[in-house]
Formats: sequence, C-alpha cells, structure tokens
Amino acid sequence: MPTNNNLILSVNAGSSSLKISLYGTQDGRDDPDPVQLILTSSISNISAPPAKFSFKVLGGTSKDEEPQSIHDHASAFSHFIECLGEEPEIDPRRDVSYICHRVVHGGDYTDPVLINDEAYKHIERLSDLAPLHNGASLAVIKTCLSQLPNAKSIAFFDTAFHRSIPAHISSYAIDQKIAKQRGLKKYGFHGLSYSFILRSVSRFLQQSCTSALARPPAASSTASRSTPPWVLPRSMGSPGATRSGAIDPSLIFHYTNKAGRMSHDKGSAVHLHVTQAEHILNTQAGWKALAGTTDFAAITKQRADDPAATLAFDLFADRVLNYVGSYHLKLGGAVDALVFSGGIGERSKELRALIAERIECLGYARMDEGRNKAVDGTEGVVVDIGPAGSSTKRLLVCRTDEQLEMARQCVIESDQFYRFLHE
Amino acid sequence: MPTNNNLILSVNAGSSSLKISLYGTQDGRDDPDPVQLILTSSISNISAPPAKFSFKVLGGTSKDEEPQSIHDHASAFSHFIECLGEEPEIDPRRDVSYICHRVVHGGDYTDPVLINDEAYKHIERLSDLAPLHNGASLAVIKTCLSQLPNAKSIAFFDTAFHRSIPAHISSYAIDQKIAKQRGLKKYGFHGLSYSFILRSVSRFLQQSCTSALARPPAASSTASRSTPPWVLPRSMGSPGATRSGAIDPSLIFHYTNKAGRMSHDKGSAVHLHVTQAEHILNTQAGWKALAGTTDFAAITKQRADDPAATLAFDLFADRVLNYVGSYHLKLGGAVDALVFSGGIGERSKELRALIAERIECLGYARMDEGRNKAVDGTEGVVVDIGPAGSSTKRLLVCRTDEQLEMARQCVIESDQFYRFLHE
Repeated sequence: MPTNNNLILSVNAGSSSLKISLYGTQDGRDDPDPVQLILTSSISNISAPPAKFSFKVLGGTSKDEEPQSIHDHASAFSHFIECLGEEPEIDPRRDVSYICHRVVHGGDYTDPVLINDEAYKHIERLSDLAPLHNGASLAVIKTCLSQLPNAKSIAFFDTAFHRSIPAHISSYAIDQKIAKQRGLKKYGFHGLSYSFILRSVSRFLQQSCTSALARPPAASSTASRSTPPWVLPRSMGSPGATRSGAIDPSLIFHYTNKAGRMSHDKGSAVHLHVTQAEHILNTQAGWKALAGTTDFAAITKQRADDPAATLAFDLFADRVLNYVGSYHLKLGGAVDALVFSGGIGERSKELRALIAERIECLGYARMDEGRNKAVDGTEGVVVDIGPAGSSTKRLLVCRTDEQLEMARQCVIESDQFYRFLHE
Repeated sequence: MPTNNNLILSVNAGSSSLKISLYGTQDGRDDPDPVQLILTSSISNISAPPAKFSFKVLGGTSKDEEPQSIHDHASAFSHFIECLGEEPEIDPRRDVSYICHRVVHGGDYTDPVLINDEAYKHIERLSDLAPLHNGASLAVIKTCLSQLPNAKSIAFFDTAFHRSIPAHISSYAIDQKIAKQRGLKKYGFHGLSYSFILRSVSRFLQQSCTSALARPPAASSTASRSTPPWVLPRSMGSPGATRSGAIDPSLIFHYTNKAGRMSHDKGSAVHLHVTQAEHILNTQAGWKALAGTTDFAAITKQRADDPAATLAFDLFADRVLNYVGSYHLKLGGAVDALVFSGGIGERSKELRALIAERIECLGYARMDEGRNKAVDGTEGVVVDIGPAGSSTKRLLVCRTDEQLEMARQCVIESDQFYRFLHE
C-alpha cells in the first residue's frame, strides 16, 4: 500500500449510504492524475439495518460484513476509521491531511469551502433545502472533526458547478423577491459528477481526435458550453425511483381529494398539508408507483410481460429525450458528444440504445450495437459506443466518480487547497 | 346580411370573456369554406364590471358599449341575443340551427357531443378539472337551452384533438390506478385551435408548394404528426400570465414556509392547504409575479429599462424553446413548419424573432425581418415569415380562430352533424 502523510479521504454520503475512497498524492500539481486510489469502502442500508459494509484495498485486504454497530452515518464512518486503522502501514489520525465531503446543496456557495464553525453552521442552515442528503454529510463532517482532528475537512457542493446558469433559465416564474429571500431557483445538482464527466470527456476527445481532427480542447457533455460550463438541472425535473418529477401544480389536489374522482370542489378536499403533498410526490411516485419497483434493471427486464414496466421505461425515456432535445437547442446544436453516465446511463444498454436511435436525427453518430453491449467488459473511464473513427457528434459512456473528482479538485484546481497541502 | 335558417352560432367562453361568431351555411359539404362569417361579438371584463361589449356585422351594424345588465356569462349571452334580435333580417329563435360551444375540458370525450341531459351532467362533472372555463361554458349552454330552444347545442372539446397522445407521454409518474380513477394525465389543451392551425397550414403548404415541390398533403404544426395528429400539451407546462408552469413539487413548501428563508423544517411550515398552494401557483405566479403585469406586449416594451421585464421575456422564450427542442426530437426532425399562433405568437414579432434565430440550427428557414414586422398588415390566415420560395422547414404565422373551427367541423367533419343539418 503506497502511503504518505498527505492522504486524501473522499466521502460521499447518500440518504442511506456512504461511499469512501482514500487517495495518495503526488507533488506534481500539473499531472493529469494527481491522486492515486488506495482503497474504497462502501456502506449501504444505513437507515435499514443491518448495514452492509465493504472495504477493499487495491491489491490488499477485502472485507464484506454486516456490523451491528452501524446505525447511522456517524457510526458508519467510525466503523470505517476503525478498519482503516487496522491496515499495517496507516495511521488515520497522522496520515489523512484532507477529507473531502460531497454536500448536495450549497445554496449560494459557488466554491468548495474549508469547514470551520461558520461554514458548518451555514451548511446546517442549507440542509433545509436537501434534508436527507445534507443532513447525512453534516453527521459525517462532525464525526471527522472529532475523530480526525488534524485533517482539514472541505465541503464540495453539487450545486457549485451550475453557478453560471443564466437567470432566465434558473428562475421559476414566481415572485422574485420571495425567490431571492428563500433561495428558490433551479440550482442544478450532480455538479461534482458533471465536473468529472466534463474533464474526462474533454481529455478523451482530445486524445481520440488529435490524429484525425484538429479539434478544440473544450469538449462537452450534453449541455455544457465552453467556460464556465452550464449543465441544466435534470435531477428533480424528470421522474426518479420514487419521485414524480416536475408536475402541473393542480395535480396534487386532484390526486388526493376524497371524492375519489376528478373533482375541483373544495368540499371534497382532504385536509392535506403541503408537506404531505410533497412527501407523496417525492417518495410515493416515480417508478415505484408506476411499476412497483425502484430498480430500473428489473423494470427493463419485466417489459416483455408487464405493461406497467413498459410504461415506466418508455415514460422515463420520453422525459430524458425531452431534455436532450431542449438542451441540444440551448447549445445551438454545437454539441460534441452525448454522454451516458450515472447509474442508469452507465448500466442500461437498453435505454442507451433507445435514446441513441431517437437522436440520430439531430446529427449524432449511429450507435454500434456491439460496442454498446460490451460496455460492461470495457476498460477505461470513457467508452465510445459510436462507430469506429466517427467524426460526427459522439455517443459516449462515462463512468463517473464523485470521490475522485473531489480529491482531484482538492489537489489541482484550487491554489488555496494546494497551498494548504504544502504549507 | 346573407341569412338563411341554417345559421351556426359559435360561442367561446373564457373565464371572464365571451367571443361569439355567427355563420351562414352553404349546402356543399365538400367546399373548403363551408361557412360564411356574418357577424362577430365579444364581451370582456365579465367578472370585473362594467363589461365591455362589442358587436360587429360584416358590412353593417357596429356597436361598442358597456351595458350595466352584464354581470355573468348568462347575462352576457342574453345581451348578445337581444342585439342579434334587433338586426332587421334575423330572428335568432327561428334562424339559428346550431350553437357550437367550446368546452375546455372534455375528460374522456373524444368527439364533439350533442347536448342532452346526460351530456350536460357529464360536462358538469368534468368542470371540476377546469373550473373557471368549463363553468362559464355550462352557464352559456344553459342559457342557450332556455332562450334558443329550437337550436341544437353541440359541445366541442379542447382536449379531443390530443386523444391519440401515447400513454408514456401523457402519463405522469404517479400511481396509475389513482390516475385512471381520477382522470389524471396530461390532456393537452387548445385542441380546437390546433385543429384550425393544422387544417389551415396544410392547405397553405399544399398551395404554396404545388409549383415548386411535389409535397405530400399532410403538413404540420410544431408537433403534429400524420393522422391522427398529436400535439403535446403546452398550456399548463409553461408559465403564463399568472401561472407558474410545471414545478418541482418541493417548491411550494419553501415558498410558503413562515421562517421566511430556505427551510425544510416542518415546524416552520405555515398551515397551508394544497388548494391554497395551487391557487398561489395558478393565479399569483407567471408574468404577473415576475414583472408586475399580465400584458406580454407591455413586458416586451419595458425590457429596455426594466430587468424584471427582461427576465420575464427571456424566461418565457426559454420555456418555449424547451418545448420546440423537445417536440422537434419527438417528431424525429421531420417537421414541415414551425407555426406561431395564439395571442403572443400572432402579435409578438420580438418573440418570433428570438425563437426563429435560435432554431435555425435545427434546419429552419432564416426569418425574413421585413416579413416578420409586416405580419400585422398582411392579409390571409397563414403568413410565411421565412424567405420567399424557401423549401426548408418553414416559419409561419397562423391566425387561429376557434369559433370558425367549430362551425366548420359542425358542417363538414361529422356525418352525424351533417345529417342533423339537413334532416
């Protein structure tokens, strides 16, 4: 295990999970790969014990267990630190210099921030906007501050990448005084992932094009444009596992009225509070409501026999295509590549095939069926699933890695953090 | 005034307005213009008296007044019938054979329906889904049944045009049992207008293309595809005068919480019922909230001095472009023309110019600035604002006319109504 006393820990807290990667650092800040992965750990089912804990050192220890001690994010992180301390050449308190925390909602923060009292309190206030995710991050941050007091904790915000989205795109058509006061706009999420994808795909396109085409260095994912990039918020607009996606404001009323039929009669309204309405649309809608499962792979398989699964699959593809068409136009058609990424984008060859077929009319390469099917067995961060040597708009798959992105940014992007690292 | 005893009255009730056209009929059902306009009347400010009443006979009487007697849709219609009775050669009770009523929400009705007791009750139940509009139509229908008992009233539904939208596009990502029970889906509105536009533009493209191109007879508006056509619902998805458009379900909670800042803490929730939330998003949002006015022309003018007007204009254009991009892709790029229509589409040369510039990358004709500016002074139902003799995807303006569409359908489209007319 290559260790030094400049280790970087990247922590990615989900609502019921924790993904952790540990990296070693090199001195050369211009190196395209300034950090080296040492180990990964993941903890799932945190809110539904027993939690599943895995711990894998590159070329070393590999553990999978269900520890009884894990019952929340803090105890999950403590368990990880214990395991880490058992590794022969590592002392977490001594060797970890930086801990990078993914924080979903950064509000008005536009850059990563070193955690101090003030920053902690600010993130605490922001957690109202993303209670499940920010709350988990804060629990881990607190544990880090007490258990690894020598390490500096840095918060990286998923919303920061989208800070340059123009106001007419990010604003809702609501009272702007209230909107500004309360921070109500489309923030854009998954920014760390977009940042990783943008960087990786840029490098991939430059490499793969240097021989054939004098291609400009700036490349892009679906809706990233030049510098600063902007990718439009997709997360809450389209349906998810248990989420309805954007809706007509009248929907919830009709959905819940006690008459049990189409009715706008106020007398048939149940006494439904907006918080309950929100709960229904965020946790009891989406694929779970449509097809009875939150597992997109299962939905994909069940399509042959189950019309509800077909509806869920086709509805999701339709909403994705809505965004692709709309973003294509926002970029004036000047798109280098459509990049499939994230859970479904990386795993569902079926969804990729459907989307690829439908976007050919916008000038995208025709998908190579063999390459699309072979993605799982292919090495590399970026995989081209278009025809070999294509010079049209590419079809790519990118294996995104938010932990790596934070560690990279910690070392190379910020002079501030660079100075921290070498002070 | 050419009269006969087969007059058709077309009535278009808005939430606070009434537009009425009277047509004479010819026998030839294959005639492309089977009805002839005799007079138009419009009543506005019905819910904010004094109402404004206008009455214009082609080549005859022209009145503009503010009658004290008008205080609702029923009294507005009665006033019109009184005026009509004062015309020398016309007896409303004797001469009007058919009254066409625009009904916004048709629920599961897929065709126009002759009003009888059963149909009336059915529409009454549906009015829960579109209370302001359907309610007004019902008031007028009731008045017709009592004041013009010899005329047959036919309801034309705005939702009927969209009946062939596939389920994966029209469905929300919510429990489908409840959705079916309560009729919750994207219905698509403005169907009578789309029907008029599709018919008029088809004819226009055939005429203007016969010499240059052997163009197939089926043409289309933005997202109408072959037969049966489908145009995706835009109305409630994009912001309007006082309407937020589609939103993230969490928005309303943050908007209304009493903490007055970003908060998801249930303790800071006001006791807001979903009906109030809906009211805010349907009547206190949109341009009114963004720019303090519901008048898009005023917003357009104020842009030079007022950033709020700029935001409202650009936000609206952005949302329209989202739909154009998404619909373009749904049609596989096989689009004959983008048609500007309705209030803003027909009147705002500024919005047309912005949209046209942005969609050139999708293969649309470059807008002709002179032709765009001259639309108001140009005759004809359809005006081409692209370059002369263009064979690419056209840019058209269509002056839509829902009353004419109903009268036409009444005569030519339905064998059933044709038989009524000649029985």
